[in-house]
Amino acid sequence: MAEESTTSAPVLTVDVPALTELLDGRYADVRRTVRELLPTYASVLEDAETMPRDEFRERVKEVVVEIASTGAVGMGFPEEYGGGGDIGASIAAFGTLAYGDLSVLVKVGVQFGLFGGAILQLGTKRHHDAYLADLIAGRLLGCFAMTETGHGSNVQALGTVASYDPEAGEFVITTTTPEAGKDYIGNAAKHARVAVVFAQLEVAGEEHGVHALVVPLRDEAGATLPGIRIEDDGHKMGLNGVDNGRIWFDGVRVPREALLNRFADVTEDGTYVSEIESAGRRFFTMLGTLVQGRVSVGAAGVSAAKVALTIAVRYALQRRQFETGAGEGADGEKEQLLLDYGLHQRRLLPRLARTYALHFAQEVLAARLHDVFSGITTDEESRRLLESRAAGTKALSTWLATDVIQECREACGGAGYLSVNRFAALKADTDVFTTFEGDNHVLLQLVGKGLLTDFASDFSDLDQLGMVRFVAGLAVDTVLEKTRAHRLLQSIRDALPSGGNDSWSTDAGLRDPEYHLAMYRFREEHRIGGVARRLKRGVDSGMNPGEVFSRVQDHVIAAARAHVERIVLEAFVEQVAAMEDGDLKLALNALCDLHALSGIEADAAWFIEHDRLSTQRSKAITREVGDLCRRLRPVARELVDAFAVPEPLLRAPALVEEGA
Amino acid sequence: MAEESTTSAPVLTVDVPALTELLDGRYADVRRTVRELLPTYASVLEDAETMPRDEFRERVKEVVVEIASTGAVGMGFPEEYGGGGDIGASIAAFGTLAYGDLSVLVKVGVQFGLFGGAILQLGTKRHHDAYLADLIAGRLLGCFAMTETGHGSNVQALGTVASYDPEAGEFVITTTTPEAGKDYIGNAAKHARVAVVFAQLEVAGEEHGVHALVVPLRDEAGATLPGIRIEDDGHKMGLNGVDNGRIWFDGVRVPREALLNRFADVTEDGTYVSEIESAGRRFFTMLGTLVQGRVSVGAAGVSAAKVALTIAVRYALQRRQFETGAGEGADGEKEQLLLDYGLHQRRLLPRLARTYALHFAQEVLAARLHDVFSGITTDEESRRLLESRAAGTKALSTWLATDVIQECREACGGAGYLSVNRFAALKADTDVFTTFEGDNHVLLQLVGKGLLTDFASDFSDLDQLGMVRFVAGLAVDTVLEKTRAHRLLQSIRDALPSGGNDSWSTDAGLRDPEYHLAMYRFREEHRIGGVARRLKRGVDSGMNPGEVFSRVQDHVIAAARAHVERIVLEAFVEQVAAMEDGDLKLALNALCDLHALSGIEADAAWFIEHDRLSTQRSKAITREVGDLCRRLRPVARELVDAFAVPEPLLRAPALVEEGA
Repeated sequence: MAEESTTSAPVLTVDVPALTELLDGRYADVRRTVRELLPTYASVLEDAETMPRDEFRERVKEVVVEIASTGAVGMGFPEEYGGGGDIGASIAAFGTLAYGDLSVLVKVGVQFGLFGGAILQLGTKRHHDAYLADLIAGRLLGCFAMTETGHGSNVQALGTVASYDPEAGEFVITTTTPEAGKDYIGNAAKHARVAVVFAQLEVAGEEHGVHALVVPLRDEAGATLPGIRIEDDGHKMGLNGVDNGRIWFDGVRVPREALLNRFADVTEDGTYVSEIESAGRRFFTMLGTLVQGRVSVGAAGVSAAKVALTIAVRYALQRRQFETGAGEGADGEKEQLLLDYGLHQRRLLPRLARTYALHFAQEVLAARLHDVFSGITTDEESRRLLESRAAGTKALSTWLATDVIQECREACGGAGYLSVNRFAALKADTDVFTTFEGDNHVLLQLVGKGLLTDFASDFSDLDQLGMVRFVAGLAVDTVLEKTRAHRLLQSIRDALPSGGNDSWSTDAGLRDPEYHLAMYRFREEHRIGGVARRLKRGVDSGMNPGEVFSRVQDHVIAAARAHVERIVLEAFVEQVAAMEDGDLKLALNALCDLHALSGIEADAAWFIEHDRLSTQRSKAITREVGDLCRRLRPVARELVDAFAVPEPLLRAPALVEEGA
Repeated sequence: MAEESTTSAPVLTVDVPALTELLDGRYADVRRTVRELLPTYASVLEDAETMPRDEFRERVKEVVVEIASTGAVGMGFPEEYGGGGDIGASIAAFGTLAYGDLSVLVKVGVQFGLFGGAILQLGTKRHHDAYLADLIAGRLLGCFAMTETGHGSNVQALGTVASYDPEAGEFVITTTTPEAGKDYIGNAAKHARVAVVFAQLEVAGEEHGVHALVVPLRDEAGATLPGIRIEDDGHKMGLNGVDNGRIWFDGVRVPREALLNRFADVTEDGTYVSEIESAGRRFFTMLGTLVQGRVSVGAAGVSAAKVALTIAVRYALQRRQFETGAGEGADGEKEQLLLDYGLHQRRLLPRLARTYALHFAQEVLAARLHDVFSGITTDEESRRLLESRAAGTKALSTWLATDVIQECREACGGAGYLSVNRFAALKADTDVFTTFEGDNHVLLQLVGKGLLTDFASDFSDLDQLGMVRFVAGLAVDTVLEKTRAHRLLQSIRDALPSGGNDSWSTDAGLRDPEYHLAMYRFREEHRIGGVARRLKRGVDSGMNPGEVFSRVQDHVIAAARAHVERIVLEAFVEQVAAMEDGDLKLALNALCDLHALSGIEADAAWFIEHDRLSTQRSKAITREVGDLCRRLRPVARELVDAFAVPEPLLRAPALVEEGA
């Protein structure tokens, strides 16, 4: 009720093809090609429910190999090996592929992203020549054996050892403890013939940290090679078309050339050589190859959210419940559409807005990835910012998927629970997105560490305790001044209204993107400063760094999240600002406002506590979110149709009778 | 860091058997019996993953029939038919059964709660004699055919018609439109021989609203009877051991005696008779039999959360990650336990506290249910309060399950994704709890309606628009004065600190349960008043009631939620207050404080906006939540062990190596 701040705003209209074109961006052709390819494999969605696990795994493998033959998934590899030579295109293709069955997607990710990516990024010409053409064509399936039962996020602590035997010119690979068995490795249980194995490199009794080697696992007939033991990880919550497994190595020998030696090598006589002097930086450089995987998973998360929203919005525009008030509840009258209920709008539309925000944020990220990995941008700083942005965006995009899919399922009631309406698989398959390719909390910790040290040159060497000591050793002002946020935002405090209940109590400026950005930036800067102060205070009080970190950890995460939220909002605001005036811009503007304001609303207590929001203004924001929902309601269908999820992939028989 | 408000607090210790006894309460024997029974069926958890759907359905059916033979699930039926004659005991048994496979649980719920409950509560002696003994023993399986494809929550709008034919002395049952097909009906696809069918009763051309009739579906051999068409709902997100289906009726004839005639009957000559004059109240009286199902599902949700927390807490006390600070990161040193990280405590311990809160709230609710349904309490008001409390608690308990299971899964990382660690089934099976036995949002709307009308005698007649008009017709003060909350809480405003930043800026009273209760009560009262004001303002401004309701809907839900949160907190506080002084009381006190304060923290913006929380005090609450987590950390294991989830049901092989 209350103030009708948007009643005077123009009615929104959306041209669906134009919006799809905008969303498709630079790689519209690639996305269209994949969207046209996907209906061919729509039956895989049903196979996932009906086929026994072994059969479904074979089916998914066949589909992956077939898709490989179309060239749709090898776009990121050099053309000389049969790839497309365009990393940005490969991200666009992968993200679009996520409209379909997600076992297929993840198997593609394992084969081309992780396994293929490691060979490409960590290997040199000898490895490229030996493997790339075959793996791109799907003739050689491989796996990426990094995670161990006891070590997921803490890769530096891996227990697998690769020890160099100079007599034989070979590495000897051994699983040293039960905790050091490789685990959750996709493609390992059945299909991989080779693995890229991450192990502690030992040369002449000296430890050089984690390195990657190519290790054959199975012969041509599929039999496991001597010294290798493989166990099936068994049934999983989802993604049962991917054969995850455990691998143990018992003195397995591989030639010296098996070491992926782009960043470090061992000479024949057993000398360790590397152009990167710092062991820590070397480690993080190798891990940097994970960045493409994180960008890809984030894109997949956003796509999964789009599918869920498409189904839930269409369902809400078709399903009626209880009488509408129009005819005062006369008998036999049509009940009200779900999406005409204020609560239903509140449940779906801010999530739709956020999905758009993360779409645009992923687009910016993919462009940066393309520039860095294609050598268009070559400075070290850009690479570090990319890694941080990829880690943070991955966390937000995958949590978005979990949250949106859940809400959409509930918003479809019992129909949402039937597998045929897709939510079952969407939920189960995407659930692990928040964990794999880096646990979201750990990724945000990495982002936080980077912010606090401003990606200092020795950043890579710092574990969490090193970070505590580093920050505690600086004056708080120094930490703050060193942060990028601070430098960019010196004038924010003055530009922002204070929280005093007298000022800014009107709605003026509530829909001003500069106001939104100032709020997000203020939060980021203040959060970072708060962490720095807490770290210093903890260390100064004599607490040990581990205890200090444990107590400040949630503030580190909150600071990182504030940082990524700011980046995401900027991407959306900049996208809208760059558009030509017109209906589409008006609609996206409203969507961007809804995203920004519902973000502030969700964190209102913090803004009030930090004197950047008056209680009146906070209430005004809540009203404005409701108003924006009502304003966007008439174009909700167009906003999901623009995602262009191919109709056969929606399944959802309830939607077939549309208009009934 | 900051103020160490709890450093002076005594160290907590917990006697696990004593706490289990407390949790078990009045029905300790029943719960123990079911806990001892469950390991026999632990293999069903694995069967759910490995068996094809048809085979698993048969397996679950066998288990249900076997369990029925032990008497563990018929406790709520009269002893003369082989039941246990104790409704409270049946709720306790059902809640405990939820530690095991949930297809078994839900099939038990369908057979004994819904089908059996309808026969018992809506039928009379002729129906009891005909069906109860057989259904209690599992010899006659049935289903509860209420929901239709087009009508879930709006039961009053069902499209199935039962028309009385006085010539034949029979009812003719017909599915009138495609939307009126019965849908999602458990036991329908395979096993039910009879159904309790809800249909619009037509007698001599007059409509009398929704009534229930017993309709045979299949013959002894399992063949579908003439006029009946049944279709399988197919694969679902979870609960695939339950055979949900759709049913259509084409002029199916049943004798006049098939009408479950406790509240209304049709005489042989075709006269409709009922002791309840109001059609609306008659309808809600019949629906009142659903209350037991809601109490049961809520109890099951809490049990599922307990299983998830048991696994996640034990995992967090075993899995190590990154170096501890104790030895300043020396090589080879043990990494830090997950639960020693502040963030991990923050993720698990407030959820553990809330699970305890809802456990105690469910206990109070079950006791009320027992008293009302056993005839110990007979007044109409108690029944209405019970219905409201059951609806609200069901919503909070099932959302708790969804939230807790998700967070616990993520907190176990990749291990949590493997089916063997139980989260896969826990998540998939419980997901529909928020939808079935009443959609949570719709249930909260019912609660809100009751609050606004103070369960007025004509409450049952009011649909949402009637409610809008009813409330709008009163002065806001009248609405408020009529509310129970208001009468109870006249002195709250004075007792509570205001939000002015000068007052109450210390931590004084932060752990005072009277303070917590006053905050929760203030929120409830203020929320209800706010809705009343908005409804009046909307109608006064000339908006139609449907539009008014749509716009105020989220406030109605928020008011209802505030009401249920207050009830839940009271249950916990009263439980703790009733305990003898000692270690156990100290521990539960801390847990209750954590629950209360994290609830306030989650809604801090609202409290600040409404001048009941200063920003300093809000920050102090956040610190206190962190302190309480640290204080409870050493007894976390004991707090989950007290749930007494039988070890074989945990599966989770990762937990076997405990202490390693």
